[in-house]
Amino acid sequence: MTTTGKQLFTTLAPDGKLTVEVAEAQFPDPTGNQVLVKMEAAPINPSDLALLLGQCDLDGAEYSAGKLVATMPEPFHSAMKGRHGQRLPVGNEGAGTVVATGDSDMAKALIGQRVACVPGSAYSQYALADASMCLPLGDVSAEDGASAFVNPMTALGFVENARMDGQRAIIHAAAASNLGQMLVKICDEDGMELVNIVRKQEQVDLLKSLGAQWVVNSSADDFLPKLMEAIAATDAYYGFDPIGGGTTVDACFKAMERVAVSKMTAYNRYGSNQAKRMFIYGRLDTGPTILTPSYGFGWTLSGWLLTPFLAQAGVETMNRMRKRVLANLTTTFASSYKRKVTLEQMLEKDAAIDYRAMRTGEKYLVTPWG
Amino acid sequence: MTTTGKQLFTTLAPDGKLTVEVAEAQFPDPTGNQVLVKMEAAPINPSDLALLLGQCDLDGAEYSAGKLVATMPEPFHSAMKGRHGQRLPVGNEGAGTVVATGDSDMAKALIGQRVACVPGSAYSQYALADASMCLPLGDVSAEDGASAFVNPMTALGFVENARMDGQRAIIHAAAASNLGQMLVKICDEDGMELVNIVRKQEQVDLLKSLGAQWVVNSSADDFLPKLMEAIAATDAYYGFDPIGGGTTVDACFKAMERVAVSKMTAYNRYGSNQAKRMFIYGRLDTGPTILTPSYGFGWTLSGWLLTPFLAQAGVETMNRMRKRVLANLTTTFASSYKRKVTLEQMLEKDAAIDYRAMRTGEKYLVTPWG
Repeated sequence: MTTTGKQLFTTLAPDGKLTVEVAEAQFPDPTGNQVLVKMEAAPINPSDLALLLGQCDLDGAEYSAGKLVATMPEPFHSAMKGRHGQRLPVGNEGAGTVVATGDSDMAKALIGQRVACVPGSAYSQYALADASMCLPLGDVSAEDGASAFVNPMTALGFVENARMDGQRAIIHAAAASNLGQMLVKICDEDGMELVNIVRKQEQVDLLKSLGAQWVVNSSADDFLPKLMEAIAATDAYYGFDPIGGGTTVDACFKAMERVAVSKMTAYNRYGSNQAKRMFIYGRLDTGPTILTPSYGFGWTLSGWLLTPFLAQAGVETMNRMRKRVLANLTTTFASSYKRKVTLEQMLEKDAAIDYRAMRTGEKYLVTPWG
Repeated sequence: MTTTGKQLFTTLAPDGKLTVEVAEAQFPDPTGNQVLVKMEAAPINPSDLALLLGQCDLDGAEYSAGKLVATMPEPFHSAMKGRHGQRLPVGNEGAGTVVATGDSDMAKALIGQRVACVPGSAYSQYALADASMCLPLGDVSAEDGASAFVNPMTALGFVENARMDGQRAIIHAAAASNLGQMLVKICDEDGMELVNIVRKQEQVDLLKSLGAQWVVNSSADDFLPKLMEAIAATDAYYGFDPIGGGTTVDACFKAMERVAVSKMTAYNRYGSNQAKRMFIYGRLDTGPTILTPSYGFGWTLSGWLLTPFLAQAGVETMNRMRKRVLANLTTTFASSYKRKVTLEQMLEKDAAIDYRAMRTGEKYLVTPWG
């Protein structure tokens, strides 16, 4: 027996045409540790967008009911050679009600419950999910629980990772995002110092209103000295950047090194011995990352993704993190949305252009049943 | 009592004037574990040049006997604020004869011996050096022993570091250098796979004549496919780049990721799980490092310097490395020089412009006694 429902698919043809469409799909009965979730809400996160739309030409695309067809420019088209011709589901996370389960006890225990889940196919009326990754929501609504995984676990992951590496302070860029606001609260709760970098005065005000102590505006003339002041006060030689392209990481390394050098008593041609560590965890700017030779050789820059981090941290740590998220879903880990859209509305021109811009505080929520 | 001799000093004034000059200097008697070395030969390595001349304007400089005065442009002038006004000695390494020692047994045992040393002031007729870092040269000449530290230990350090990190293959850029030629021999001796990146066909031929199996020409049209072929054959997801600026690191990460993706059976929007690691250990190109968003998030890039690596590796490893260098100074670890210059000749226009260009195979050797 199978269940039928509407689902969104994205297909990049070898000729460079990207087709994103809502179609009828068949959902097989769950087996083993699987559950079938009737999806009620799913956020559009930056981490969904690369697969959903990538850098396709939305202005010149053709739009029809429940369908968009656009051109994928180079070098993005060739870079995604691995997906050419494949019809792929999208949507990392969401929330809904378990309507069928596999045979495992863990799966069976979830029948009828509202859960947050991480199916990778959340833009759909139904999704098969792994019971071990489902979080029973109890009284929390599907909308409030839809973003229970990606942002909360990433923000918690930063603090966990920093602590594993012996750090007591973190820098965070694009810090006024939903995730950034969570991080302000987590760091406050955990006594981790946090230096927030934002782009606008209103974002400074927002984070200060949440209790953030150090907020630096990258658009201000005194950005670098203010960043240095915050680093000197907190010892934040460790940071996370979701922008990726441009000079955010470079500015952080530069400020870290200048603070470290100002504390040295003798000149060293190779710079300070202070280890400096940055992670890029997103690509809000898909341009190249620019690193100038102005902070010696004592620095390390890595990509950061949630899944490999959780694998490294282990099941026990992950379960502790998830419990904390569940207990604070409507407070520390609350998300806010600019607009709710159906599967079909996701593929309308204005909506697609708007949510792909990934502006701070303007996240979309998909409600597949309208 | 003190010894008198000629020494080279570099001074960057707060107004941006760089003065490099040969002057009479007093060398105090060595104490404790120090030895006084009558310096006979010292190489001009890329790692000396940042302090010696940096990016000063050599074309517009004033040259007189044993002296050069040049302008240091921005942003380099401000970036070196820590040295403004300080009269600094230069020259990481060299070789000569121990003419006086401190009271320690280790120091006293070296009296009268020819040694390689790492005084940090090697462009001088005399230098105070730490006995524990001196390598007695026996029958090896000062010229053959002058480069016994920086290049050999760095090349050996790459292989040690790779092994510590569980790697069996290395990528090396600008691989036709003195250091690169040593690395070809070391990797051959140690069974470490090596992918060499060079810029010219004649450098391909040179490294092949030394027995290198994988040599890729970055100027060739098929650079990327050839690099991928070499990575696929060797599993080299780990590499060292002395160029720093530009896209060398980016090309390596890109090729590594494409090889890793080609081995995957299912498409993953985040790229491969293959960890990719690169180190920048020099700045032959002082332009910015460019990293494009085309290899997912499973990569790490760090600066690499010999001194912190040796500190991390420990004394036992360092001593094992030094013994290997000494035993093979005229074979595996032999250096070659384009030209010998006196301290005064170092400061002549043609010489300074020539050695600062850091062209592969055109290293200078300083002989302070003429």
